[in-house]
Amino acid sequence: MRRKHNIDDILDSGIDLFRRQGFNNTGVEDILRAGGIPKGSFYNFFKSKEDFGLQVMQRYADIYDAYVAGKLRDKSRTPLNRLKHFYESLINGNESEGCRYGCLINNLTQEIAGNNDAVALALRQHFERIVAIIAECIAEGQKQGEISRAYPAPELADYLHTSFYGALVRMKGLRSSQPLQHFLQVSMNILSVS
Amino acid sequence: MRRKHNIDDILDSGIDLFRRQGFNNTGVEDILRAGGIPKGSFYNFFKSKEDFGLQVMQRYADIYDAYVAGKLRDKSRTPLNRLKHFYESLINGNESEGCRYGCLINNLTQEIAGNNDAVALALRQHFERIVAIIAECIAEGQKQGEISRAYPAPELADYLHTSFYGALVRMKGLRSSQPLQHFLQVSMNILSVS
Repeated sequence: MRRKHNIDDILDSGIDLFRRQGFNNTGVEDILRAGGIPKGSFYNFFKSKEDFGLQVMQRYADIYDAYVAGKLRDKSRTPLNRLKHFYESLINGNESEGCRYGCLINNLTQEIAGNNDAVALALRQHFERIVAIIAECIAEGQKQGEISRAYPAPELADYLHTSFYGALVRMKGLRSSQPLQHFLQVSMNILSVS
Repeated sequence: MRRKHNIDDILDSGIDLFRRQGFNNTGVEDILRAGGIPKGSFYNFFKSKEDFGLQVMQRYADIYDAYVAGKLRDKSRTPLNRLKHFYESLINGNESEGCRYGCLINNLTQEIAGNNDAVALALRQHFERIVAIIAECIAEGQKQGEISRAYPAPELADYLHTSFYGALVRMKGLRSSQPLQHFLQVSMNILSVS
């Protein structure tokens, strides 16, 4: 149990640091310092910084997948309201951090997926899992006549969450949630049956 | 003239390296090596790597602004066709590089705008200039009845180019222009008068 506990502590430090300052700008020393972890322990668990990065992404993805599924499979709201509530909750989370850090998946894709095949594959698989859950919710709304059928659910879901990634980038430049709010307002109109 | 020539050479090396491997992952040594520039020359021109980064962004922004204006003020095409042609040309450019590097503005916003005020401001101003040119083209199309009036032109322009930023991030994860093509297809439908 102790070994498992330690791994998760180190991974959580990695999530926090990579979100705040990026992958290349974070050294193994920073991670050890933040987590109060001896160097030997780190290399007991991880072969390299890249291996560590991949495990950090996996832990973040597991947490995020469960969060998305919880919000978008909540039958107490209509599908369109679930989507609205889901994005509002992400907006609130970013506002609570001063709109500086955004989404680890989005950040790492931008920073290193162009040059690292293993990272690109892991990030892609994570994005596709999220989009599949969003598509499931959109399909339910389309079936109920609440969401536009102008596009197949998987295509709308992909467009929607890809646009949200762009809005997260813009958020960092503005240090404001205004691009996220604008994304939500226009997207909800595009999704709604006109 | 020689001094001017040298600065532009160093800045062009910066554009290329920052696009390929990011800001934090590129050292001053890399820049000097790529440009065949002695260290003394670098510090004659730039106070620091950050100062260099800001000047690189300015040069990229000047080149990009002129490119966008050339495409979107080309009266030989209709406004909607200008937008389509503009994004198609960006897609072709990314395809020719294996869909790995994307847009320097988008990349630097993602990588450092959360932690650096001067960079965040410069990136924001650049984005706003681009969006103003896109909005001008959309407004022309709305006036001619070719583009939907569901939203004011500046709001549509902001949504459109923000979504494109998201698609560029996704492109890097997939190493494919498919997210850019999907962005273009759905966006053209959103813009078109239904």
